[in-house]
Amino acid sequence: MRLIYPENLEDIATGAAVLGTGGGGDPYIGKLMGRESMRQHGPVQLIDVDDLSDDDLVITAAMMGAPTVMIEKLPNGLEVVEAFKSLQNYLGKPAAAVLCAEAGGMNSTIPFSVATVMGLPLLDADGMGRAFPELQMVTFTLHGLAATPMAMADDKGNATLINTINNRWTERLSRSATIDMGGSALIALYPMNGKQAKQAVVRGTMSLAEQIGQAIRQAHKEKRDAIAAVQAITHGVRVFQGKITDVSRRTETGFARGEATLSGINEDRGYTLTLNFQNEHLVAKRGGEIIVSVPDLITLLDAQTGDPITTEGMRYGLRCVVLGIPCAPQWRTPEGLELVGPRYFGYDIDYVPVEQRFAVK
Amino acid sequence: MRLIYPENLEDIATGAAVLGTGGGGDPYIGKLMGRESMRQHGPVQLIDVDDLSDDDLVITAAMMGAPTVMIEKLPNGLEVVEAFKSLQNYLGKPAAAVLCAEAGGMNSTIPFSVATVMGLPLLDADGMGRAFPELQMVTFTLHGLAATPMAMADDKGNATLINTINNRWTERLSRSATIDMGGSALIALYPMNGKQAKQAVVRGTMSLAEQIGQAIRQAHKEKRDAIAAVQAITHGVRVFQGKITDVSRRTETGFARGEATLSGINEDRGYTLTLNFQNEHLVAKRGGEIIVSVPDLITLLDAQTGDPITTEGMRYGLRCVVLGIPCAPQWRTPEGLELVGPRYFGYDIDYVPVEQRFAVK
Repeated sequence: MRLIYPENLEDIATGAAVLGTGGGGDPYIGKLMGRESMRQHGPVQLIDVDDLSDDDLVITAAMMGAPTVMIEKLPNGLEVVEAFKSLQNYLGKPAAAVLCAEAGGMNSTIPFSVATVMGLPLLDADGMGRAFPELQMVTFTLHGLAATPMAMADDKGNATLINTINNRWTERLSRSATIDMGGSALIALYPMNGKQAKQAVVRGTMSLAEQIGQAIRQAHKEKRDAIAAVQAITHGVRVFQGKITDVSRRTETGFARGEATLSGINEDRGYTLTLNFQNEHLVAKRGGEIIVSVPDLITLLDAQTGDPITTEGMRYGLRCVVLGIPCAPQWRTPEGLELVGPRYFGYDIDYVPVEQRFAVK
Repeated sequence: MRLIYPENLEDIATGAAVLGTGGGGDPYIGKLMGRESMRQHGPVQLIDVDDLSDDDLVITAAMMGAPTVMIEKLPNGLEVVEAFKSLQNYLGKPAAAVLCAEAGGMNSTIPFSVATVMGLPLLDADGMGRAFPELQMVTFTLHGLAATPMAMADDKGNATLINTINNRWTERLSRSATIDMGGSALIALYPMNGKQAKQAVVRGTMSLAEQIGQAIRQAHKEKRDAIAAVQAITHGVRVFQGKITDVSRRTETGFARGEATLSGINEDRGYTLTLNFQNEHLVAKRGGEIIVSVPDLITLLDAQTGDPITTEGMRYGLRCVVLGIPCAPQWRTPEGLELVGPRYFGYDIDYVPVEQRFAVK
């Protein structure tokens, strides 16, 4: 166990933007929420899953919706606590810890608000090791855990509680409710016990995010190469460097969907990279060929500063380095690829691990 | 209190098709469900609201969705009991009686299934005195009662529980869930106590439906004019007689929407009547002028037999008499008209009670 203070959350938010693979919402918002809550309620205990008793209740807290909407419709930090409490009441048992759905984006910082307000520890873990757009896309699903009972709350005071036959149905019903609620909603879901958590989570990912954020901050301070520092920690591969020449995006069926085009610079001059995203980057195509795909992470870093760039932050003319980062090993199993592999998202290709494709031959 | 047997339900279903004003779903399905349940669990006690104690819990049970879908996707009769039980459990109190949302269509017969399976009495009352397409359109709303907590269930085993800030929000969230659930869902909502029920319901409407159904059956038997018999009970005005020449319909945003055209016969020869519906008939236009509108009932009866015709049952060539039936007086107040008057449905006209427009001058 160690305590997380607002300064630590700063680094976690930066690291979460790297692991957010373009999506998951700007962690800046979640960081503000978390910082504000911590100022009132104190630091957050970050604990290891092995610190849990087997019958401890763990609840995942998150925001659902399109990041483009989340930016315009800031949560006040209490709605997610409402959802959390409402699920806890429904289960008739107090939670022993809060869990993050994602190690990327806002959903890696918002749970700090819940933890401090509820006076509960947060697990140093998540359900993805990155960010993914749909709520069944967690390692919890691979372990047969149900997303429901799931509680939802919005900024107006509406709330729902969902029980479904499987996690795809949970995604479907809660996505519609999220759209109705104005494009974003606060959720509490995947209630599990300590024993299940020990098997089902991706471990150590809050610390990983913090480590990445720290490395970027240190590199800035010491005027070293922040991109190389990120690569060293994440085993990320430089797959392209280029200038953003086009971004098209639309908020559709509750997601921020779109495409970005990068025109190569330096050794990639003359080549074009296309990124397709659904909240998160799904595939990167160079000259029409997919060179990185889900479940591996595709992360844009500012070529100058090494700062992570979210899909909402992509602007014409921005020079970036695109990293391909190996995903958590859970996703590279047949079951993992069925849930979040390229074919699920409609790309008819076999998944090739990024480090394998870019291996020095 | 009196007992309702399958034979009585037969008449109630026929009468409910008259009061269903084209929508509410074919009461035949609800009748089959009710009959089957009664065979297993016995007759249903029909009680007056005044038989309730002030603190008795009353729950409304219904089916939600487009009638066109309900016909194709028959409920098995137990899902609605699931929704009912789930709301009862959430409230932590056993219900003392079942209430109908509508006196028209399936939703006036489905609650008989719930009542017999649960061993509860059914109130001789409803929340509309007819059928309306949206769930906030009940006299309960006029009395400030909340539709939530509301429970939903589908045929697959999914369930949700909704809490909202007002009944329009309940309609919005549950309509999306209904669409997700395949276009129809089973619901339990508007929990209220006996005191509230005494003020908020439209009284005697199950008996009214039965009386209408009985009158049609008797008229058939005695070869008398069934349409005149319906008029005598409902104070319905003959507003048109014609032959259906065109029906267009689409299932859209969870509703059966469309338009039907009737070409006049007998004294209406040379005139055209157009009916616009959203599950239920909303307005009847003769030569472009609205001659009957919500909240009054627009009911098509077969010109030969006097049998009610639902919007799904409208076929080219069918000869019908169109009745305009005065609505329950609750709807003729300013608050009532705001909730279900022509302007709510997008028709920029003042409501004129049908019996006033067709008064013998």
